[in-house]
Amino acid sequence: MFSVTVRDHMMIAHSFRGEVFGPAQRLHGATYVVDATFRRAELDADGIVVDIGRATEELHAVLGELNYRNLDDEPDFAGLNTSTEVLARVVSDRLAERVHAGALGAAARELDGLVVTLHESHLASASYERAL
Amino acid sequence: MFSVTVRDHMMIAHSFRGEVFGPAQRLHGATYVVDATFRRAELDADGIVVDIGRATEELHAVLGELNYRNLDDEPDFAGLNTSTEVLARVVSDRLAERVHAGALGAAARELDGLVVTLHESHLASASYERAL
Amino acid sequence: MFSVTVRDHMMIAHSFRGEVFGPAQRLHGATYVVDATFRRAELDADGIVVDIGRATEELHAVLGELNYRNLDDEPDFAGLNTSTEVLARVVSDRLAERVHAGALGAAARELDGLVVTLHESHLASASYERAL
Amino acid sequence: MFSVTVRDHMMIAHSFRGEVFGPAQRLHGATYVVDATFRRAELDADGIVVDIGRATEELHAVLGELNYRNLDDEPDFAGLNTSTEVLARVVSDRLAERVHAGALGAAARELDGLVVTLHESHLASASYERAL
Amino acid sequence: MFSVTVRDHMMIAHSFRGEVFGPAQRLHGATYVVDATFRRAELDADGIVVDIGRATEELHAVLGELNYRNLDDEPDFAGLNTSTEVLARVVSDRLAERVHAGALGAAARELDGLVVTLHESHLASASYERAL
Amino acid sequence: MFSVTVRDHMMIAHSFRGEVFGPAQRLHGATYVVDATFRRAELDADGIVVDIGRATEELHAVLGELNYRNLDDEPDFAGLNTSTEVLARVVSDRLAERVHAGALGAAARELDGLVVTLHESHLASASYERAL
Repeated sequence: MFSVTVRDHMMIAHSFRGEVFGPAQRLHGATYVVDATFRRAELDADGIVVDIGRATEELHAVLGELNYRNLDDEPDFAGLNTSTEVLARVVSDRLAERVHAGALGAAARELDGLVVTLHESHLASASYERAL
Repeated sequence: MFSVTVRDHMMIAHSFRGEVFGPAQRLHGATYVVDATFRRAELDADGIVVDIGRATEELHAVLGELNYRNLDDEPDFAGLNTSTEVLARVVSDRLAERVHAGALGAAARELDGLVVTLHESHLASASYERAL
Repeated sequence: MFSVTVRDHMMIAHSFRGEVFGPAQRLHGATYVVDATFRRAELDADGIVVDIGRATEELHAVLGELNYRNLDDEPDFAGLNTSTEVLARVVSDRLAERVHAGALGAAARELDGLVVTLHESHLASASYERAL
Repeated sequence: MFSVTVRDHMMIAHSFRGEVFGPAQRLHGATYVVDATFRRAELDADGIVVDIGRATEELHAVLGELNYRNLDDEPDFAGLNTSTEVLARVVSDRLAERVHAGALGAAARELDGLVVTLHESHLASASYERAL
Repeated sequence: MFSVTVRDHMMIAHSFRGEVFGPAQRLHGATYVVDATFRRAELDADGIVVDIGRATEELHAVLGELNYRNLDDEPDFAGLNTSTEVLARVVSDRLAERVHAGALGAAARELDGLVVTLHESHLASASYERAL
Repeated sequence: MFSVTVRDHMMIAHSFRGEVFGPAQRLHGATYVVDATFRRAELDADGIVVDIGRATEELHAVLGELNYRNLDDEPDFAGLNTSTEVLARVVSDRLAERVHAGALGAAARELDGLVVTLHESHLASASYERAL
């Protein structure tokens, strides 16, 4: 099994609902350093999993929809805690849509799976892994 | 599949028995930077895998039982090489006991698995992965 | 010249005023991974620059005054852009006050200087350096 | 499941054929920081997956066959794009040959699998995972 | 004293002349992860050292003149070893020219100095520091 | 001003005397990831500060005198706390002796200064800077 991982980041504000979150119930923010890993069993005709440049562009586009925003104000997240785990799934699902739409090229439709990891600090991260 | 990872560290002394260890048969020591990864298929009602604050506290408690000690003097490790691999299993099993005892909350009993990685330097690490 | 550096982090929301900031004029947020470096010419009687444990506690206390907050609502920053640079100075000056008040011990009053670096992502950081 | 990971690096020149590579079709180069992960279900009699020292030596030997070279001139890669993915497989397969030949010791023949990750920058990496 | 640091990278081929370089006399390559640090005594009217976005763009433009190239073929480096140290000076001097030409804005002309560090691997780097 | 930095590590046991050290008064250990930075105003005839290979070898030799040892048993440190700060000075002074003895080559005698940083964890480090 092969994989390729590309990294980017986003800087957002949000707050959480639920006692478990303690002081994170207040409006605060985070830099998420985001790693997106694309997996496939065999390489394409160019000898790659996916073009690193295009993968980087698509990840950047997905993060651009969230970057420099207060997620508490985004209709897509109404009623949801935008925890690191939830955001890992959102980024993953939006990348998957782009793969299926051909944004990463025809060969990228042979991808088997995707993992997205959001690092919220040097001490904590969350991931979501899905099939493609 | 979702996961959350938290990081802490411990600083211990120990020695190894066995020719394969060369100069590490002498009493020496290590800083282990420890990553604990908690996995589950679905998020809980708060939208998380496990509370990062509580996961951090429990990891800190487990490492606190080993930190600033000479492991050669610990009865739990009598007759064992406290290799990075063995310590990864010890930390993992002790975290699993805490999960089962409810230390991470009732919802954390839905966790599927656990991976513990100990980084002994910028060049080497060991991991142990187990079900929960 | 000797130095000791300790690391912690904070997660805040804020917005900037000024066209130069582009989309960062919107309410967003950041994780700042913060390194505080304490400098002195000679070590104290214990052979240290400053106790790493106490330095870590004081840095944590200073960051705790800002952590999990929307800095736009903090009276201390009214009329100020809480840029990474400005926050590096704020953290540095507050640590300096604690040093002068003896929070790091009597010997720590021999410290010569302080550098505080805030990493806002894997790609960008800002520092402020001052005498003590 | 246990694993041990060791890190080394190599510095090579190469060029790619295929429009997808854009400016990387020109002769350029890369530092690959290489992580090799060895996996097995149970530890050996010494309490380890594989000796970290020997694993490091074998990885260094494998990288030494590629290091400080223009891969466009290597007969082994004639007609191939030496993409990060392809090189991850090459390093992995060559390490596997050494494991099978006993270079990591008799006990290392109990290894179950191998993952090799090449980091081409702070932003991108590729991996290849195989059974042993 | 304040500073801001931004990071980018380039991937180049080159060879060295001189016995001291051993196998690096062969054509090989490197990924250089590049940190550019801008320093000034006081912040500008916006509360910053320099706009991180513009600094990132100018660093990217400077590295773009070298990226994906065989430096042995560049007329600018004829007769020079493009060592990590030499390239740190080249990047630094080219950034300085852009600062003086106003590419970082009028306020950036108040900058006092510049440090450029090139990381050639996880184990080695070189820096050049100059006044502005 | 130019500089070159090389990285290596050592794994030692030790204990501290003094109440300030708390639980670190017990026998424990550390991995020190060590960065040695060599500085000079002008490059040598080969276009370098110092040969990275030789600098790496000399740092490795200096660390080899301490590696895999219990520093409490080393006569050189009798009556001393082998704090991270003290060890940074020891490594620095021993490297300086080697520079003066010509181990880094005749040209390396033009070096102006040396900084040694020991990272004891992902959260704390200490440095010593001296002239050459």
